Amino acid sequence: MSSKTSHCKIVDCTIRDGGLVNNWDFSVEFVQYLYQCLNEAGVDYMEIGYKNSPKLLKGADSAGPWRFLDDGFLRKVIPNKGRTKLSALVDIGRVDENDILPRSESLLDLIRVACYIQDVDKALELVQIFHDRGYETTINIMALSNVMENQLVEAFDLIRESVVDVVYIVDSYGSLKPNDIVYLVDKFRSHLPNKRLGVHTHNNMQLAFANTLTAAEKGVELLDASVYGMGRAAGNCTTELLVAHLQNTKYNVRPVLDMIEKYMIPLREKEEWGYLIPYMITGMLDEHPRSAMALRASADKDKCVDFYDKLTTPEVAHSK
Amino acid sequence: MSSKTSHCKIVDCTIRDGGLVNNWDFSVEFVQYLYQCLNEAGVDYMEIGYKNSPKLLKGADSAGPWRFLDDGFLRKVIPNKGRTKLSALVDIGRVDENDILPRSESLLDLIRVACYIQDVDKALELVQIFHDRGYETTINIMALSNVMENQLVEAFDLIRESVVDVVYIVDSYGSLKPNDIVYLVDKFRSHLPNKRLGVHTHNNMQLAFANTLTAAEKGVELLDASVYGMGRAAGNCTTELLVAHLQNTKYNVRPVLDMIEKYMIPLREKEEWGYLIPYMITGMLDEHPRSAMALRASADKDKCVDFYDKLTTPEVAHSK
Repeated sequence: MSSKTSHCKIVDCTIRDGGLVNNWDFSVEFVQYLYQCLNEAGVDYMEIGYKNSPKLLKGADSAGPWRFLDDGFLRKVIPNKGRTKLSALVDIGRVDENDILPRSESLLDLIRVACYIQDVDKALELVQIFHDRGYETTINIMALSNVMENQLVEAFDLIRESVVDVVYIVDSYGSLKPNDIVYLVDKFRSHLPNKRLGVHTHNNMQLAFANTLTAAEKGVELLDASVYGMGRAAGNCTTELLVAHLQNTKYNVRPVLDMIEKYMIPLREKEEWGYLIPYMITGMLDEHPRSAMALRASADKDKCVDFYDKLTTPEVAHSK
Repeated sequence: MSSKTSHCKIVDCTIRDGGLVNNWDFSVEFVQYLYQCLNEAGVDYMEIGYKNSPKLLKGADSAGPWRFLDDGFLRKVIPNKGRTKLSALVDIGRVDENDILPRSESLLDLIRVACYIQDVDKALELVQIFHDRGYETTINIMALSNVMENQLVEAFDLIRESVVDVVYIVDSYGSLKPNDIVYLVDKFRSHLPNKRLGVHTHNNMQLAFANTLTAAEKGVELLDASVYGMGRAAGNCTTELLVAHLQNTKYNVRPVLDMIEKYMIPLREKEEWGYLIPYMITGMLDEHPRSAMALRASADKDKCVDFYDKLTTPEVAHSK
């Protein structure tokens, strides 16, 4: 791309968002190899999982360790940290602040707080705690395509006065188009002139990379991606496409291709993500992919027309 | 999308470009069902194959009938034509003009001539013949990303004075980004103010739909697509995404989903197209996908890193 994107940084979310696909069943070797590849590729951040507390989440026992990152475990996984920083995501109400060490005692550099619009106040309380412990912070407002203007403006007032470093535009449903991204970036920028911006996209309509590029060219700084697009449902913007196209000589696509060849192609044989018609349908209807995920897990997984009819017939349509 | 796209028409290329994937091995029932679905979906044109002459093409015997459309055969396939018009593509030097009936005696409405930049003069001679026989015509200039400005300007001078109805911007290598589309549409529009424009994209970098939308919003009128993206190598912009998003109440996505469920998903199990890393690599390097297609047909089909090294090491890189 043009030099318009030289300010950008990539946040690879393969383990965190991809973990939603395989219940975080990544081997330590997988995660170590990914870290090494991302570091060689010049990727700025690796989001290595969630920092939620298993005490606060049902059904936690079956999930891999990347869902409940432990600082001691992390030191064993990444004994030699390179230039790629480490990030973790937390959800409102699922994080125990006592689990969060001061940054000086942790391998983590960045803690990101995901929330829906009505919980921005709670998210900012957590942001304050993490900030005080020395971390870089972001707030990731999910499902923006379903948020009314008045709610958003109220949230902006809180965020503007907070310590948060970066505010994310999150296309949770993969329903946004490049024009929508332009609109949102302009809105965020005008209401939050003192904050840096980030973007997280989904590929339901094959627009994740295009939307991310659009945001980048509009000045958005942190760009989420995952290797081979691995992420919930239709997946994310791919790390390989961003690394290949952002105008920054430090990026090198070859190590990402190495990761894809060694681990991601075999994994894609076992696990499913990407552009599939049920995800396209929930994206075009601007709703959560959960109904499509349920369909893909059933014997009717390819019954696109019935699925479309169910979601578009008013008397039987799921509520969002 | 916005009302900025209400001028657009969709040209479904599933049989013609998809035929490059399966050597045009589509059953008559497949093609008839596709025509019915496209007609119900409100799609404007169906490109039902090539109108090349088998006499002028080596290895023609093994290909399905859609590679060498015969008007009599076509009447049996489509006994009841609906509102969806029919199109055929011809290549320079592979078409026998004696095969082209007057439009009044043919089911075809549109004949498109594909050519490289150096053959624009020859393409326009064919266009004149088809125009004189009553057909709508387009000229599709391939591999624009490898064309120098001076060649393009010379071609524009010829095209401007010709009878051709529509001039296509063709991203043969899937290497263009939305900014490039903006640049090309502006250039075509300024040099060819008397011509309508069309666009044909490939999905090597997951940008086929985004590039097509960008062109549409810039006023491009004919938009090529194929159902489930079926087309050579990484495939095309998908018909289902265009039908779902163009601002035109005549379009209905449900019949396209029906086609996907009944025919395209089973076909994709047997034949391969779409976003695969070798195609991403040729796209990012702005070259023809033939090396990637050869790789995918070999035992080394997933050896992405070796493939990347071969294409990027100067002494062994293929010439374009």
